Amino acid sequence: MIALQSYVQGRWVTGTGEPKSLHDPATEAVLGTVCPQGIDHAGALAWARDVGGPALRELGFQRRGEILKSLSAKLHEHRDELIEISGRNGGNTRGDAKFDLDGASGTLAAYGNLAASLPAGNHLPDGDGVQLGRTPRFWGQHILTSRPGVALHINAFNFPAWGMGEKMACALLAGVPVIEKAGTASAMLAWRIAQLVVDSGLLPAGAFQFVGGSVSGMLDLLSPMDCVAFTGSSATGALIRGNKNLVARNVRVNIEADSINPAVLGPDVDLGGDTFTQFIANVATDMTQKAGQKCTAVRRIFVPQDLVGEVVEALRERLLATKVGNPADGDVRMGPVASREQLHDVRLGMNQLLTVAEALLGGPQPIQDRGYFVAPTLLRAKDAAADVLHALEVFGPCATVIPYDGSAAAAVLACNRGGGGLVASVYSDDRAFVEAVVLGIAPWHGRVWLGSEKTHGQALGPGAVLPQSVHGGPGRAGGGEELGGLRGLAFYQQRTAIQGDRAVVGRVFGNESAGN
Amino acid sequence: MIALQSYVQGRWVTGTGEPKSLHDPATEAVLGTVCPQGIDHAGALAWARDVGGPALRELGFQRRGEILKSLSAKLHEHRDELIEISGRNGGNTRGDAKFDLDGASGTLAAYGNLAASLPAGNHLPDGDGVQLGRTPRFWGQHILTSRPGVALHINAFNFPAWGMGEKMACALLAGVPVIEKAGTASAMLAWRIAQLVVDSGLLPAGAFQFVGGSVSGMLDLLSPMDCVAFTGSSATGALIRGNKNLVARNVRVNIEADSINPAVLGPDVDLGGDTFTQFIANVATDMTQKAGQKCTAVRRIFVPQDLVGEVVEALRERLLATKVGNPADGDVRMGPVASREQLHDVRLGMNQLLTVAEALLGGPQPIQDRGYFVAPTLLRAKDAAADVLHALEVFGPCATVIPYDGSAAAAVLACNRGGGGLVASVYSDDRAFVEAVVLGIAPWHGRVWLGSEKTHGQALGPGAVLPQSVHGGPGRAGGGEELGGLRGLAFYQQRTAIQGDRAVVGRVFGNESAGN
Repeated sequence: MIALQSYVQGRWVTGTGEPKSLHDPATEAVLGTVCPQGIDHAGALAWARDVGGPALRELGFQRRGEILKSLSAKLHEHRDELIEISGRNGGNTRGDAKFDLDGASGTLAAYGNLAASLPAGNHLPDGDGVQLGRTPRFWGQHILTSRPGVALHINAFNFPAWGMGEKMACALLAGVPVIEKAGTASAMLAWRIAQLVVDSGLLPAGAFQFVGGSVSGMLDLLSPMDCVAFTGSSATGALIRGNKNLVARNVRVNIEADSINPAVLGPDVDLGGDTFTQFIANVATDMTQKAGQKCTAVRRIFVPQDLVGEVVEALRERLLATKVGNPADGDVRMGPVASREQLHDVRLGMNQLLTVAEALLGGPQPIQDRGYFVAPTLLRAKDAAADVLHALEVFGPCATVIPYDGSAAAAVLACNRGGGGLVASVYSDDRAFVEAVVLGIAPWHGRVWLGSEKTHGQALGPGAVLPQSVHGGPGRAGGGEELGGLRGLAFYQQRTAIQGDRAVVGRVFGNESAGN
Repeated sequence: MIALQSYVQGRWVTGTGEPKSLHDPATEAVLGTVCPQGIDHAGALAWARDVGGPALRELGFQRRGEILKSLSAKLHEHRDELIEISGRNGGNTRGDAKFDLDGASGTLAAYGNLAASLPAGNHLPDGDGVQLGRTPRFWGQHILTSRPGVALHINAFNFPAWGMGEKMACALLAGVPVIEKAGTASAMLAWRIAQLVVDSGLLPAGAFQFVGGSVSGMLDLLSPMDCVAFTGSSATGALIRGNKNLVARNVRVNIEADSINPAVLGPDVDLGGDTFTQFIANVATDMTQKAGQKCTAVRRIFVPQDLVGEVVEALRERLLATKVGNPADGDVRMGPVASREQLHDVRLGMNQLLTVAEALLGGPQPIQDRGYFVAPTLLRAKDAAADVLHALEVFGPCATVIPYDGSAAAAVLACNRGGGGLVASVYSDDRAFVEAVVLGIAPWHGRVWLGSEKTHGQALGPGAVLPQSVHGGPGRAGGGEELGGLRGLAFYQQRTAIQGDRAVVGRVFGNESAGN
């Protein structure tokens, strides 16, 4: 039996308090335990702020970028071992595990590569200089500097590798030390990655700490230069955003939460064409990949009324061909959900949706005697306007076909009823339809993914979060923003307007040469 | 006796509830009343969202920019009348009133002029497009779209014109309707400006509403596309940021709060030179302009130990020459503070500072029989490390000289003890000192102003907030950000990553021409 440890203040420690069990969700076997308490929160924060931060900033962008690339390589080197853990303590198929792990190493490498374009040191110019007075003598230049605090990252259980990797990549490149809290259900993979990071010796002391247990007490100790980035449920997100200390001290908070992601099929789409094929393939993938436990997975499938029959038939065919079972079996294409709690929540949520929808496939009933399995579940709305369809995220292999009249205006209204989402996808080759839908839904979504004949075979689906594009969404989705290339560093930086003599401001802090 | 009205849902209404009196702070005469209750909050929000927003966005950037320029001209046209009101209901000298009013019209005009560089429509590309797949076919472009909500602006009493103008300028140019809440003590000027805005007929119905009374009930009704921008005390700011509805729905909040702004005199500065002259003039102006009621006014004056005597002497001389009295008297250079409550708070704060500092000039004692007058007050720290010096914003004509050892490292530590500020100013012609101080204090400040021989006579002082540079600061200062050219629009916009076929994404949403 493994007792999972935390890495704080430069050493591995086993927690205290009532241990929680870590399971293989396919067999329900107990694999290990994690103890929630016993971490010195104040000590960990001080270690990051006083030891890790200065050492990281001593390195500058370039060397931090090199470290990120080396960490990426380190994960890749241990890929097979990590895939195995991801299957055992996460219920992930080999494909699911790779999606998570390659996402982590890819994002670390992408940020490592970004460093090559950055100046020496730790600050970046933000935009161009600007004349502030009647003469060009009085000059302004914005700069972005590393905030001398700590980044507390509270990660979700569904992407133990990628979630930690993408948050780490941005903070570390910005020069801010991290404390990574693992989602409990899948903590073994996060723990093993933490061991690899620590054992690599690549990062200076204090730059990386890892907590398996609770960090809620840490929130009360954060100060203005610190920040919290959280991925998880809206309810927990609200507790964090509303934390008295964070509110009183204006500590930065970034939240990625629930999202009832829509996919819209345009009325122009030819049933025999590549756009339709792509639509069906992407929706089926989103529903079954990681057993639907992706914050970006499609939950609402908006289909023109007269295409509903064909869409349902094509999706049923794909989903029926998806073998569900223990991911240790190589034929399996969909594993269980991550925990008993998730299984309970998914079934509860399906039952709520079934008050306004009918099951075309699957449903909440048990499909195996053991393990947290749930069937791929395709629903069709009986009442397209019902609130629950647009407000409840069922975090499992479940999505609902909702008919609409095929107009851009109706598609926009329907998508936006989600109250703010991470990603919407639109499948159409009608540019007027696409433009109208995109501009209508953009304010309510952090990302809009467009499927068309031309993207068939060229594009990762909407469920993939890429380091070049922002990840986050307004409202229900948390109001956060991560990644997006250098934009992802801004959360860890302070923007400051520097005003003064152009000869100083432009040359020392901007991009002006001595010739100006 | 004037009963101040609110403008909501297209009509002027007098509130209900216990009326609050508006005073002439120089004479304590009652000039009018404002009733805090009786506004239909839900109705006002719906009017903005459903009527004002769509009409504003129908106009596009260009026509909204033209309206801002016309509003600027309208304020300028009524400048003399507004100066008179500003003196009567704000205690402002003619110079103080112009600072506020010209700030408003200047900022409106600056944002109006910015529109000329913007595309038609309502959305902006954000950064360059980027290749997302193995081939350039799969392409990403970020865009910024107008959020279809309402901007609730809760303004401070000290800048009834500028505060409302700068917030309005950004929201309206972004295409978001505003509800402007006036700071009560000086609400007559805000009310008169609101009348001018309404009577101009320049803005479409619903784009502008004005509330003289309370809007706290409105916070509970805001939804994810709405936002709140508040300027005022940290305590009220925390109540807004912690509001349950705003937290639960991830409504955007921007706060500009307390700031213990530092000015640093470099050890290299020659007592007879222009840098020293500028330092003394700017500090004296900041202390007395608007009777020190500027969120950007200097509160802590860091002076190398061996220059303290000369600095104190020079400041005393300037402050003694500042005639204090009723601004209706043209010779007067400093008026009263805005209200009895402010007078009480300023005296209380001075007494707290006097536990660790000595008064070199002025102090909390009354200087007139009538009116909310307080003397220009220069303190010298007895204990430079005392917390209260770095934590208490006395919002009046009061600042403290704090000796330091003349090193950049000590200056950085001292400035940053403010816990996050709006602006820091540094006076030096030693580039190494300037660079070290700027990079050390930038993470803790939204703006750093550099005074040197070359800026003498060329630059507005650090107390002036310019539309080209961001205004806001981390931590104690609220963690907000306003203005900064187009950056100021981002609070009212949603950033969205658009992903898809380059031919569509690059041309329709980016800057690519059909040739690409």
